[in-house]
Amino acid sequence: MQNQNNSGINSATILIHCPDQPGLVAAVTDFINVNGGNIIDLEQYVNRQENEFFMRIKWDVSKFLIPCEKIEDYFRTMYANKYGMTFRIYFDNYTPRMAVFVSKMSHCLFDILGRYTAGEWNVEIPLIISNHEDLRWVAERFGIEYHVLKVNKDNKETVEAEQISLLKEKQIDFVVLARYMQILSDNFIESYPNKIINIHHSFLPAFIGAKPYHAAYERGVKIIGATSHYVTTELDAGPIIEQDITRISHRDSVNDLVRKGQDLEKIVLSRAIKLHIDRRVLVYKNKTILFS
Amino acid sequence: MQNQNNSGINSATILIHCPDQPGLVAAVTDFINVNGGNIIDLEQYVNRQENEFFMRIKWDVSKFLIPCEKIEDYFRTMYANKYGMTFRIYFDNYTPRMAVFVSKMSHCLFDILGRYTAGEWNVEIPLIISNHEDLRWVAERFGIEYHVLKVNKDNKETVEAEQISLLKEKQIDFVVLARYMQILSDNFIESYPNKIINIHHSFLPAFIGAKPYHAAYERGVKIIGATSHYVTTELDAGPIIEQDITRISHRDSVNDLVRKGQDLEKIVLSRAIKLHIDRRVLVYKNKTILFS
Amino acid sequence: MQNQNNSGINSATILIHCPDQPGLVAAVTDFINVNGGNIIDLEQYVNRQENEFFMRIKWDVSKFLIPCEKIEDYFRTMYANKYGMTFRIYFDNYTPRMAVFVSKMSHCLFDILGRYTAGEWNVEIPLIISNHEDLRWVAERFGIEYHVLKVNKDNKETVEAEQISLLKEKQIDFVVLARYMQILSDNFIESYPNKIINIHHSFLPAFIGAKPYHAAYERGVKIIGATSHYVTTELDAGPIIEQDITRISHRDSVNDLVRKGQDLEKIVLSRAIKLHIDRRVLVYKNKTILFS
Amino acid sequence: MQNQNNSGINSATILIHCPDQPGLVAAVTDFINVNGGNIIDLEQYVNRQENEFFMRIKWDVSKFLIPCEKIEDYFRTMYANKYGMTFRIYFDNYTPRMAVFVSKMSHCLFDILGRYTAGEWNVEIPLIISNHEDLRWVAERFGIEYHVLKVNKDNKETVEAEQISLLKEKQIDFVVLARYMQILSDNFIESYPNKIINIHHSFLPAFIGAKPYHAAYERGVKIIGATSHYVTTELDAGPIIEQDITRISHRDSVNDLVRKGQDLEKIVLSRAIKLHIDRRVLVYKNKTILFS
Repeated sequence: MQNQNNSGINSATILIHCPDQPGLVAAVTDFINVNGGNIIDLEQYVNRQENEFFMRIKWDVSKFLIPCEKIEDYFRTMYANKYGMTFRIYFDNYTPRMAVFVSKMSHCLFDILGRYTAGEWNVEIPLIISNHEDLRWVAERFGIEYHVLKVNKDNKETVEAEQISLLKEKQIDFVVLARYMQILSDNFIESYPNKIINIHHSFLPAFIGAKPYHAAYERGVKIIGATSHYVTTELDAGPIIEQDITRISHRDSVNDLVRKGQDLEKIVLSRAIKLHIDRRVLVYKNKTILFS
Repeated sequence: MQNQNNSGINSATILIHCPDQPGLVAAVTDFINVNGGNIIDLEQYVNRQENEFFMRIKWDVSKFLIPCEKIEDYFRTMYANKYGMTFRIYFDNYTPRMAVFVSKMSHCLFDILGRYTAGEWNVEIPLIISNHEDLRWVAERFGIEYHVLKVNKDNKETVEAEQISLLKEKQIDFVVLARYMQILSDNFIESYPNKIINIHHSFLPAFIGAKPYHAAYERGVKIIGATSHYVTTELDAGPIIEQDITRISHRDSVNDLVRKGQDLEKIVLSRAIKLHIDRRVLVYKNKTILFS
Repeated sequence: MQNQNNSGINSATILIHCPDQPGLVAAVTDFINVNGGNIIDLEQYVNRQENEFFMRIKWDVSKFLIPCEKIEDYFRTMYANKYGMTFRIYFDNYTPRMAVFVSKMSHCLFDILGRYTAGEWNVEIPLIISNHEDLRWVAERFGIEYHVLKVNKDNKETVEAEQISLLKEKQIDFVVLARYMQILSDNFIESYPNKIINIHHSFLPAFIGAKPYHAAYERGVKIIGATSHYVTTELDAGPIIEQDITRISHRDSVNDLVRKGQDLEKIVLSRAIKLHIDRRVLVYKNKTILFS
Repeated sequence: MQNQNNSGINSATILIHCPDQPGLVAAVTDFINVNGGNIIDLEQYVNRQENEFFMRIKWDVSKFLIPCEKIEDYFRTMYANKYGMTFRIYFDNYTPRMAVFVSKMSHCLFDILGRYTAGEWNVEIPLIISNHEDLRWVAERFGIEYHVLKVNKDNKETVEAEQISLLKEKQIDFVVLARYMQILSDNFIESYPNKIINIHHSFLPAFIGAKPYHAAYERGVKIIGATSHYVTTELDAGPIIEQDITRISHRDSVNDLVRKGQDLEKIVLSRAIKLHIDRRVLVYKNKTILFS
């Protein structure tokens, strides 16, 4: 019999980490099992150097004895407090809401909106914010609100307040910087911890900061990369979610690197977004654990 | 207190598969937990299409209440029979024993013996078998027995009997065909199910059989590959363990493909050997589940 | 002084192949040099197995003594006939015209139109043809004519006649099958030799024909691929322009392969289109020579 | 008729660079053509940003009118001086001589010696130098002289003098640092400009200096790399010859990175050595032009 309290919810996903000790897997799986849940997916990992335990479990809650809105409370009381666990629970009846920040380049935005309209991701995108008018036509073609808030060195605080106001109005859960090209204030970043995904057009930590393709050209590297990471207050130093690379040669000019790099950027960013949407990313000490 | 029966053994690894049903993870982790084991590593996976459950658990047995030699019996009685599980248990105090079959080419053999002498793998290599004298000097430099058993179309049965006799004498657990270039009989293959690892010099299932580099050249592919797989009675059709590729161009002659391919072959074969040695491969319906 | 006859034309590109013999490079470079051309880019390659010579030269024609419209005639008379050369000359004042054939899937079309609108390619796209209405909205958003010509087993000849009529009306130079999913008749294919670019969703020659992702899943490969090739009358056997791959695991269902493969398909197809537009592809005996 | 002066020599290879100007390709190919040479391979490249021209030509000298020992003088007089060319000529009857510097790790040395004994490279290796006894047995198995010269902070000058003396005695053309782990003095480096090939165990310019795998682990990168470059007096900043990468995950400990990285190191270093031996590397302004 379907739990009446959980109607419309099929699965829950929990991400956990805590100091390692014997019995953690058995304890959590037992909690799910004895309450009528069925484990759909479990991945566990222990970082021996840090002695820290990490786990992601997705389970079927259609017959779960505990109503979904009470699971967090029960789990905290009976397990998290006992084992010193940090955890988050997500249910599949909620669709995360994402805002995209762009500047003038369209390649990442097209890739995101192409996937969005094809239904590839479980996400809502109600808002695009830019500091330029250039991509308004793209947003309009896809029927998404587009707000231009021009940033300069004097009005950053005001503009960010407007941005945050829009994010709250649209109930945005996470922000994607799709080549936004502006540096956010610490205050903005700290309002969305591990919820701002950036794409940097280099193989971090190589070529931090501005003009990485120029720097790669100058250094004469044979491979270029792109890196998607959560934004932290230290520039280009946040937890890395995904990276990929492509070969180049001495024949490639800076413009060739830009062109080849754009293919990397859009694919790497989209993979990171998908991992985030699917609740597969856990951040610990500025690194990501990615559950497969 | 260390279990006296398990002295010298630190960890056990179990590979399990069975039809999926609720409670499997909880049951097995509970078995380990209540008997004083501590899970070091757990990976589970359910194939939804086949409705089959797969799991690998490595656990600390130093304080395990059940003596290691009885774990298999207890587990079968209490769990495997109940859930219809197929399973294998391995203990870390046993070093697997590997034989290498070679022909005339040295690149894979050098790679294997380089890793072996550097202590990279937990394996013993007491035996090299060839149908040619060519690589005897390599074996001698590394102090490993080298037997030449020349195969022709008339003596295959006799030669294979001698080969199997040598494998038994040296208590060989698994065989690596490091570019052996001979087709083994069904009888031989069936004596070592999922215990003969081959390297095929193409991206299977493309270019099955002889001269894959010539075939790749003729077809004009832009990428070549290598595939390591368990040998089954159907040629080049066994469960794939590992594959990798490298880019080529129209400039590459067949000889260039051979040379570039050799780098792939040795790396791909060595990765497959390591996965096998580390008990990370489970074969199901001619496919491999690889636990990471 | 700018050659008055060549006003508006900056560069010419010639692709040549012929039986190899001494002096070919010297002869052609001398032709360009003595007539006031300056070589911008030269790449030559000799296939020793076939004893065939291949060359691509791009040169500055702004001060070339021979008017552009006569270069072909002069070159044929003085060089091509003498050396048995097959050659094509292109001028940079002509923008090639491309038609896209689609079915229901949007990922390749979005990728193509994103690049097109961003000005990444030197191409005109005046026409999209489909056998379904599904992607009309995409074409309309980008302001490109979209024609639905429903194909079935009885009307193929009529439909293809209409398609060819549209291609002629729009002065189309080459056709891109962006997951079109229909097999063209030999007659159609032979009307556009080496001018129809297809994307096949496998690492050819593995998994020729329908449902390659299902076949890859069944075989248990660890890597999937995509292949862009010119269409010939033999199914999926035409000259390969570009291939790429991505890693998969036993965890990936057929749907996961489809999703991961779509990223490959669009990138591989777009790379092939760019090579074609840039006049970097020469076809010889069902293989491509790609000038870098 | 074979030129008597060039007996035993089949081909010459010239590497050229100079400021770009019209007519360079035509001039050099004409020189070869009119003197009875036949071009086997020609690759040319112009760096538009630097306005610098680069070319590699390999040609058949068996019927060349100019004796090989005079080609350099003739070419300098008639072309190099005129066009401001820097150039080097190599003949195929000379086998380059290579020394290997090692420390304690064997993986690169095994890979090099495996290829050497298999005849994969056109090179002589008469000398291995180390600061430790550890790999003497490897050198002895392959019958190559092994000299231990222990370096410490006080004796570096003396040891390097002995090393250079050995290099001269053995007529060494270039040195390979196969994980040598010592920093050479500026004086040593400047004695072998673009003739000392190092393998650095990171994706340069990320993680310059000591312990790059530890640094990669700390940063939480998803991909690690290896870089082979010519040694210059600035640490890890010399011209890059080859790079490659492999994927890692949060599951990989520092030891796993070391193990996975070793496979990269040996392959990347060996590719760089082959490019150097084949005279395919031209260094210009701290970058490499690689002729394919």
